[in-house]
Amino acid sequence: IMALRARALYDFNSENPGEVSVKESEILTLYSEQDIEGWFEGTNSRGERGLFPASYVEILRNDAASASNNNSCSTSGDSRYANIPAGGFDGSYKPQNKVENFSKPPPPSLCSFSAPQGSDDDWDDDWDDNSTVADEPGTVGGRYRDFEGNGPSTYRVSTSSMQRANAQQAKSSATVSRNLNRFSTFVKSGGEAFVLGEASGFVKDGDKICVVMGQYGPEWQENPYPFSCTIDDPTKQTKFKGMKSYISYKLTPTHTQNQVNRRYKHFDWLYARLVEKFPVISVPHIPEKQATGRFEEDFISKRRKGLIWWMNHMTSHPVLARCDVFQHFLTCSSTDEKTWKQGKRKAEKDEMVGANFFLTISTPAAPLDFQEVESKIDGFKTFTKRMDDSTLQLNATVSEFARKQISGFKKEYQKVGMSFKLLSQAFEIDQQPYSAGLNQAISFTGDAYEAIGEYFAEQPSKDLDPIMDLLALYQGHLANYPDIIHVQKGALTKVKESQKHVEEGKMDRAQAEGINERCNIISCATLAEIQHFHHIRVRDFKAQMQHHLQQQITFFQKITGKLEEALQKYDNA
Amino acid sequence: IMALRARALYDFNSENPGEVSVKESEILTLYSEQDIEGWFEGTNSRGERGLFPASYVEILRNDAASASNNNSCSTSGDSRYANIPAGGFDGSYKPQNKVENFSKPPPPSLCSFSAPQGSDDDWDDDWDDNSTVADEPGTVGGRYRDFEGNGPSTYRVSTSSMQRANAQQAKSSATVSRNLNRFSTFVKSGGEAFVLGEASGFVKDGDKICVVMGQYGPEWQENPYPFSCTIDDPTKQTKFKGMKSYISYKLTPTHTQNQVNRRYKHFDWLYARLVEKFPVISVPHIPEKQATGRFEEDFISKRRKGLIWWMNHMTSHPVLARCDVFQHFLTCSSTDEKTWKQGKRKAEKDEMVGANFFLTISTPAAPLDFQEVESKIDGFKTFTKRMDDSTLQLNATVSEFARKQISGFKKEYQKVGMSFKLLSQAFEIDQQPYSAGLNQAISFTGDAYEAIGEYFAEQPSKDLDPIMDLLALYQGHLANYPDIIHVQKGALTKVKESQKHVEEGKMDRAQAEGINERCNIISCATLAEIQHFHHIRVRDFKAQMQHHLQQQITFFQKITGKLEEALQKYDNA
Repeated sequence: IMALRARALYDFNSENPGEVSVKESEILTLYSEQDIEGWFEGTNSRGERGLFPASYVEILRNDAASASNNNSCSTSGDSRYANIPAGGFDGSYKPQNKVENFSKPPPPSLCSFSAPQGSDDDWDDDWDDNSTVADEPGTVGGRYRDFEGNGPSTYRVSTSSMQRANAQQAKSSATVSRNLNRFSTFVKSGGEAFVLGEASGFVKDGDKICVVMGQYGPEWQENPYPFSCTIDDPTKQTKFKGMKSYISYKLTPTHTQNQVNRRYKHFDWLYARLVEKFPVISVPHIPEKQATGRFEEDFISKRRKGLIWWMNHMTSHPVLARCDVFQHFLTCSSTDEKTWKQGKRKAEKDEMVGANFFLTISTPAAPLDFQEVESKIDGFKTFTKRMDDSTLQLNATVSEFARKQISGFKKEYQKVGMSFKLLSQAFEIDQQPYSAGLNQAISFTGDAYEAIGEYFAEQPSKDLDPIMDLLALYQGHLANYPDIIHVQKGALTKVKESQKHVEEGKMDRAQAEGINERCNIISCATLAEIQHFHHIRVRDFKAQMQHHLQQQITFFQKITGKLEEALQKYDNA
Repeated sequence: IMALRARALYDFNSENPGEVSVKESEILTLYSEQDIEGWFEGTNSRGERGLFPASYVEILRNDAASASNNNSCSTSGDSRYANIPAGGFDGSYKPQNKVENFSKPPPPSLCSFSAPQGSDDDWDDDWDDNSTVADEPGTVGGRYRDFEGNGPSTYRVSTSSMQRANAQQAKSSATVSRNLNRFSTFVKSGGEAFVLGEASGFVKDGDKICVVMGQYGPEWQENPYPFSCTIDDPTKQTKFKGMKSYISYKLTPTHTQNQVNRRYKHFDWLYARLVEKFPVISVPHIPEKQATGRFEEDFISKRRKGLIWWMNHMTSHPVLARCDVFQHFLTCSSTDEKTWKQGKRKAEKDEMVGANFFLTISTPAAPLDFQEVESKIDGFKTFTKRMDDSTLQLNATVSEFARKQISGFKKEYQKVGMSFKLLSQAFEIDQQPYSAGLNQAISFTGDAYEAIGEYFAEQPSKDLDPIMDLLALYQGHLANYPDIIHVQKGALTKVKESQKHVEEGKMDRAQAEGINERCNIISCATLAEIQHFHHIRVRDFKAQMQHHLQQQITFFQKITGKLEEALQKYDNA
């Protein structure tokens, strides 16, 4: 039997153990035609064995391996991707391993967020509960690279996790490596197909998404029915007579006032749908997975806070908040299995994803000036780089500050407190009656300092953890933007190419005009998303800084109060 | 020529380089009959060469070396000490190397506090200015063992000085080694001579010192004319056309309101007189000498604070405050050289020192119960040991706390401040008009944290340095007490011995009665001094703790104020 071979369509740089790097056009040997959760196992031309994304390669069935001069961006051929019909989606085919607006598919693990299609049965599998994910930091929550290690409460674990955070900071951000595969995101997101007029679908009225011209440029039309959603203290649930247990979160959206119960895996599933559907929208990352300690209070409380932040960003987003799959998630009764499964299947079969998403966007009448757009996008790119750097820096500093308060600061105040108490004990040996009051006052002062030490240790959870939660969420957004920018840049490049083709007489003006119009749609959506990002950024950082300062003020007032109490003890001493 | 030999009268344990240990009764070889500032150079029986105190040995002129069974406490013989006439001082002889209530004479250095007698000319020598004292920690300020290394601002120097402070703490306190020479202090202070009725002198009315029976036992009669004395900012003076310079302190006692100028060497001279004169009074130590950096502002300010504390303890003491030499020091015009020298000579020729000091004390009518006295003294001994331990501990803790605030705490707050500022700078790249207010507010918050870092660094000089100054002063007192207790214990032992002698018919009852009475005087004085110590201790620690807490409260309020200011910036952001 002849070995199964494939050709790499894009560069892929391995980032985790078990993966293997491949170069565009490289010929690979596959072990099986069947992918594992979106990954192929095989050997590259250098003999290295490992996993690489199935969507990065085309399987070579005949002697196609020799025809290696194919345009890698070609939309025809027998690769999975090339199966998309040139005339647009017909709705009958949907690649199983669809790649979202991540430049790299999820790592091969049981935590894969692509719930295998057509099988509702395994929905009840407790893969988020009985996770077999390896404990290696590189694997757990690999998708949340920018989350992981910088997340809240990192300082609680050990100094080694601090070093990890610092190492990550040294790496600065993954944005650089992500951009190495030029244009791949553009292709994978469906951006290219859309710009080239290859996407088509039936857009229902309810699917229409409007970009309007606001004071500061294009913006998403506001949600006319804004709502929010609370996440109440999660409870531990059991099923199969206690054999399996999981954590259930109580969600209460303000627009229905009906409480629904959702598990982490539901969030995870929803996240995957959203990432798949919206190519130029920054879907907030859900909190990282954790293999161990899932039922520990600290972890549960931390994840809940992460989910609250996530929910807040979801309901704040004019497009995400209103989309069907999110509404299904928020409103479908937890006990109505049937309706849930219907909605689930519908979402998974949604046609208006990727390239087709752009079909649903309606733009302001006047087209944008592409030069201006380019300059805005470049400015935003610079901005995200700087914001990424400074949030990483702030996160490291704040995390270290928290650690110092919990260990060093506390210890210093408690040592002083102890010394005062020792002094008062020494003083008690002298039994002069006129000394008793002083001894008690010094002893109380010692207690006060020990209490202040405790205050310092307790404080970070009140005013530094929230900052770290905020930063983690924004680091997630910042990690999304390179791909979003990439889609817009890809569209703009197509416009430039088409102009050249027209000048060279290789393309008719009408076709170029279509590319212009579709690039305008992508640009409007991108700028609207950027505008939205700035708005929530200003809102969130303002609120969080205010909260932090208020907490700090309360903290220092509490210390002052304790010291005043101690001082009073000397009045009659 | 035959080698000059001497016999050790007491044990002497070398504590500094250049010294050599000698054992009681050991035969020593001297290099010269002429002592150097109270020290003999010679070789001990083990062939070790070095310095030992001249007053610890008797020179063997004939063949006295063989008569080694002499009572080492003998008051007759040809040693310097034995030269004190049995009937008491006649005033014509005063040993040049008189030993005060320190168990060990001062180390042989130009800093020796016994100004050589009969030579007023060298008074103008700038030995405190052009000090040739070696730089070794063991030598500089050796007299202030308990001061040095624990003094204020130690943390400013380097961590090595911290280690020194800790090493000192490990040694706990010098009190143990000081007590090894049992009874030597009793003899040297004149306590023994007095108890045995060998002291006599003419006590003028003005010299009378009263111990009265107070609420809590014997106490010094209060000073009917209490006063205090300010020490103004010292100024640098020059003489010999700028060739020599020194620091002059302006002293203004409240009872004269006349300002006098005094130099450190005047304080040093006065201190030596007081130590010599009062065997059971704890003379506060003057701040340590310093070989280098004498004109540096930090040092000058630190010494001034030390002198203020010293002055406060001097004027608070009913006996010290009123004594002639102190009054001369406080009131003699700085420009009247002649009067100054007269007073100086008078003080140096004062007869009522050591043994004779006890002659000046008048006690309450009812004699004390010696058993009760012994129990009180023992209790106080335990107390001083515990207080010594806990003040050393507190000093180390506070010193470390100060160091942490100046380095670590400051750095943490400033790092957070810097990170906030970096974030605001990143945010400024986005030129969204609605973001400008937030950027400014975050930038201000960054500045606020940097300011708070500064506050932390500045704070220790306000509320920890004063505590360390206080502790240094009390460590000086605590170092004085073993010798004071020793004198009292020696007297009590003599009482017990005399009772035994009476029972054995070796002593007549009247002689024993005299010993009892004189022991009562020493006991009254000792208990009065202890009572005084407790009173000023309670006063000083209360005041200092209050001051510390007030300063801390102000400090945290200042921080709160800064944070509130920062918070307000967000109101219109």
